[in-house]
Amino acid sequence: MEREASASASAVARNRKVVLRGYIDRAPREDDMEFVDGGDVALRVPGGAGGPAVLVKNLYLSCDPYMRGRMRDFQGSYIPPFKPGSPIEGAGDFVSGMTGWEDYSLITKPEQLRKIQQSDIPLSYHLGLLGMPGFTAYVGFYEICSPKKGEFVFVSAASGAVGQIVGQLAKLHGCYVVGSAGTDQKVELLKEKFGFDAAFNYKEEPDLAAALKRHFPEGIDIYFENVGGPMLDAVLLNMRIHGRIAVCGMVSQHGLTAPAGIHNLFSLVSKRIEMKGFIQSDYLHLFPQFVDDITKHYREGKIAYVEDMSIGLESGPAAFVGLFSGKNVGKQVVCVSQD
Amino acid sequence: MEREASASASAVARNRKVVLRGYIDRAPREDDMEFVDGGDVALRVPGGAGGPAVLVKNLYLSCDPYMRGRMRDFQGSYIPPFKPGSPIEGAGDFVSGMTGWEDYSLITKPEQLRKIQQSDIPLSYHLGLLGMPGFTAYVGFYEICSPKKGEFVFVSAASGAVGQIVGQLAKLHGCYVVGSAGTDQKVELLKEKFGFDAAFNYKEEPDLAAALKRHFPEGIDIYFENVGGPMLDAVLLNMRIHGRIAVCGMVSQHGLTAPAGIHNLFSLVSKRIEMKGFIQSDYLHLFPQFVDDITKHYREGKIAYVEDMSIGLESGPAAFVGLFSGKNVGKQVVCVSQD
Repeated sequence: MEREASASASAVARNRKVVLRGYIDRAPREDDMEFVDGGDVALRVPGGAGGPAVLVKNLYLSCDPYMRGRMRDFQGSYIPPFKPGSPIEGAGDFVSGMTGWEDYSLITKPEQLRKIQQSDIPLSYHLGLLGMPGFTAYVGFYEICSPKKGEFVFVSAASGAVGQIVGQLAKLHGCYVVGSAGTDQKVELLKEKFGFDAAFNYKEEPDLAAALKRHFPEGIDIYFENVGGPMLDAVLLNMRIHGRIAVCGMVSQHGLTAPAGIHNLFSLVSKRIEMKGFIQSDYLHLFPQFVDDITKHYREGKIAYVEDMSIGLESGPAAFVGLFSGKNVGKQVVCVSQD
Repeated sequence: MEREASASASAVARNRKVVLRGYIDRAPREDDMEFVDGGDVALRVPGGAGGPAVLVKNLYLSCDPYMRGRMRDFQGSYIPPFKPGSPIEGAGDFVSGMTGWEDYSLITKPEQLRKIQQSDIPLSYHLGLLGMPGFTAYVGFYEICSPKKGEFVFVSAASGAVGQIVGQLAKLHGCYVVGSAGTDQKVELLKEKFGFDAAFNYKEEPDLAAALKRHFPEGIDIYFENVGGPMLDAVLLNMRIHGRIAVCGMVSQHGLTAPAGIHNLFSLVSKRIEMKGFIQSDYLHLFPQFVDDITKHYREGKIAYVEDMSIGLESGPAAFVGLFSGKNVGKQVVCVSQD
């Protein structure tokens, strides 16, 4: 999230950056990134023969699990890898869009920035509730899960940026909603703040399949998959006939070179389950409707939102790495500057 | 497939049966089944207070992989297990429906039998081309795969009862179709008899992902999944964006108490893949249209069909067990009697 820098022909500012040191194949560590001096940046709006460009001052940066995939040297994904030595890229107005993890970023394709209407909603919420994670929840729930009132919904990583919104949309839809998270504090948050019908700490369950059976004696109609691994295997055993699994991410597998094997896929046949991966950017035509709907819900107090704000660009690497051990409570954001 | 037995008040015949000895958790062996004398059966149409019933003489019996799941002591599936000591059940007209693996079967719910119109099409084809496997192929391809002309289709176990029909329907739809099978003879059959664009022997490929890459340099749009295990993992790496996987069965996993782990499910997200299990019996409203369509294709020479006929009820156990090591070439049928 950025602000267009005030143009002033002669002014300069010091720029600082967080760069990726080199590609990795394991879970990210803080020292995979480096906080470096980026030299002076001229505070003027560039332009000329190269086409229009915009200099933005970064206020808030978003930490998202998908960014882990950009730290590998692999070109075959839906988004290219980062370049070692260049600033980490991430979603960050006033305007919102892809920017660098630095104080100032030169945006050469300003048409890819989205203008934000200032309102009573905090600016940083445009990186979560009203940004990519919230839109992921919205698209995943309504477009992929085909939800019906009264259905049994399970959400993993439920207190995270996406999970917290999915659970609340499911409740608003009249579903019975259970979430899992990795600390008792998050479990409380799910029940007290987000209104989940029930929640459990997966780290304290020796048998995940049994835990799900206890929470869903009649089985699960919809699973919003954020984690992968053993939880997915346990869910497959507890799905109902004609169940749906929206595969949003598999955060438990991001750090593993050899991801855990999933053994219970035969349930897809015996229970006629639909399992579908999706990416929010395929549904951008729904974005305006999403902003309207969620803004309305939020203003009416029907949706709560929790973010975990880390202060200062230099805190970015630790905040990002913390995603993969569940250190964040709610959506992880880095505040670079407040003005 | 059966014929209603000629009613004659006093006549009796010797009945023979194939029974399941006991539940198993591993790959089926011939000696898990027993060929036994079933005593005399009175050749009269029963009836009376117990409601209408029909005595059928079994002519052809079908060997299908799904029957393996009924040999486990597990009630939670979509179809109940067999009873040890009672005849194996399977689809077998004149009438077609679920019957016992024996010479004569008393059918207490005759409304569940389907009358067969005798025609130029061989009777036994109603267990395959025009029966459950053909219908599985039809429903799976048209209802689950959402095929478009020109798409790249891969079929595993492609010479089997279902695979051979799927591949030919895909060709008729204008797709590019590659199949895999486990012998060079079957690979030839796929190319020469069924008109696949290409085919390969998976047992001779040390690297399945590389084999698929060779056959689908641009990737796979549709995978018709019949086998599971390492082939599925290799396919996931070779799918195209917005690809579809119809999960019909996982025959390579039937014999394994601990099924092989699938490691590449994250591809579902990065490539927005839909993976859907299905069972033909959910689509029975389409059965008449299926029979019309396939009969027309067959009579016009647009669809070929290969079955592997094993002679005599006593050959049933070996024929069934052979499914899991790929001994059958085409749809496996047991001929109990020809009249």
